[in-house]
Amino acid sequence: MLKQFVLRTKERDEMIEVTSDVQQYVTELNMKEGMVVVYCPHTTAGITINENADPDVKKDMIRRFDEVYPWNHSLDLHMEGNTAAHMKASTVGASQHIIVTNGQLLLGTWQGVYFCEFDGPRRRTYYVKAIVESVN
Amino acid sequence: MLKQFVLRTKERDEMIEVTSDVQQYVTELNMKEGMVVVYCPHTTAGITINENADPDVKKDMIRRFDEVYPWNHSLDLHMEGNTAAHMKASTVGASQHIIVTNGQLLLGTWQGVYFCEFDGPRRRTYYVKAIVESVN
Amino acid sequence: MLKQFVLRTKERDEMIEVTSDVQQYVTELNMKEGMVVVYCPHTTAGITINENADPDVKKDMIRRFDEVYPWNHSLDLHMEGNTAAHMKASTVGASQHIIVTNGQLLLGTWQGVYFCEFDGPRRRTYYVKAIVESVN
Repeated sequence: MLKQFVLRTKERDEMIEVTSDVQQYVTELNMKEGMVVVYCPHTTAGITINENADPDVKKDMIRRFDEVYPWNHSLDLHMEGNTAAHMKASTVGASQHIIVTNGQLLLGTWQGVYFCEFDGPRRRTYYVKAIVESVN
Repeated sequence: MLKQFVLRTKERDEMIEVTSDVQQYVTELNMKEGMVVVYCPHTTAGITINENADPDVKKDMIRRFDEVYPWNHSLDLHMEGNTAAHMKASTVGASQHIIVTNGQLLLGTWQGVYFCEFDGPRRRTYYVKAIVESVN
Repeated sequence: MLKQFVLRTKERDEMIEVTSDVQQYVTELNMKEGMVVVYCPHTTAGITINENADPDVKKDMIRRFDEVYPWNHSLDLHMEGNTAAHMKASTVGASQHIIVTNGQLLLGTWQGVYFCEFDGPRRRTYYVKAIVESVN
């Protein structure tokens, strides 16, 4: 069971919460127990799980990643000039995994699933793959 | 098959090895082949796999993460003041996956599974989800 | 279904693409739908998914990781002197997961799977674990 989602990012760096889309897919599947994988097929974007309460966390994270991996770097060779985005993508990772139990994503109280844009704005896609447990 | 574990951390930053608890659960399940997912439901903690031999590696890692993501940062907006912990959580990741074969975690000689506290001390939990292969 | 692969790295830091080996294994298994996990059993190496087109991206990434986690650090305690490699390993992660559909790895156009050497040259291994979906 696999579904592709499309989104449009609006900023160069942006964390877009996709938790409700993932939960809706789990509900559609009538999936009770198992796991879902949220996968980003881009090399200048990624998926992370982090705080869903204070929006300042996202702002701080975007700024902090930018400090560690500055956009402009005199030694970068890559002609597209987006090496920083590739660094951020490998740091957060291309996928995250969420356990499903009783038909619900087993996230902590403050956890949300985020599509992380690091070289926008662009049209982007991500996949959700469900691994359904037949018996438990 | 899903189990919740509870632990108490003692430091602000701490790497606590949980390998033996994960292995014990695999043994309890009498699971032979498959995978386990070790999942952290907190946004200021994470799971990583790293060296289990020299305890200085943990000390160095904690100090190095602190240098890259300093605790105090004049530009941070998040009122709780723990943005650095959120950065470290997204860097190591919310989960790790370990292959199980012949009833054993397929870890390298020097690999251990660690719960990473980045904003302790606190009471924390983590989950182990087993994906059991029916055949092979 | 589990397979071990062996490779020899030639540099201290090196990103070696393994995508075709992983795809070949999926083909050998005649696997149509599911997931594969590419797992690194070493603590000074890791697995990442990143750009497979311009080789300068790899050069930039290796140099950028070295700037964030410098090899020589006066405060490191670990006697082997390779703390930087442990940092890089936990940053990219010990494993990556790729969805399989219609018998093919579901990678984006520019995505490749990389074994990341951070303390070479060495003889290294990695595992590919296939989670085959029986129905759908």
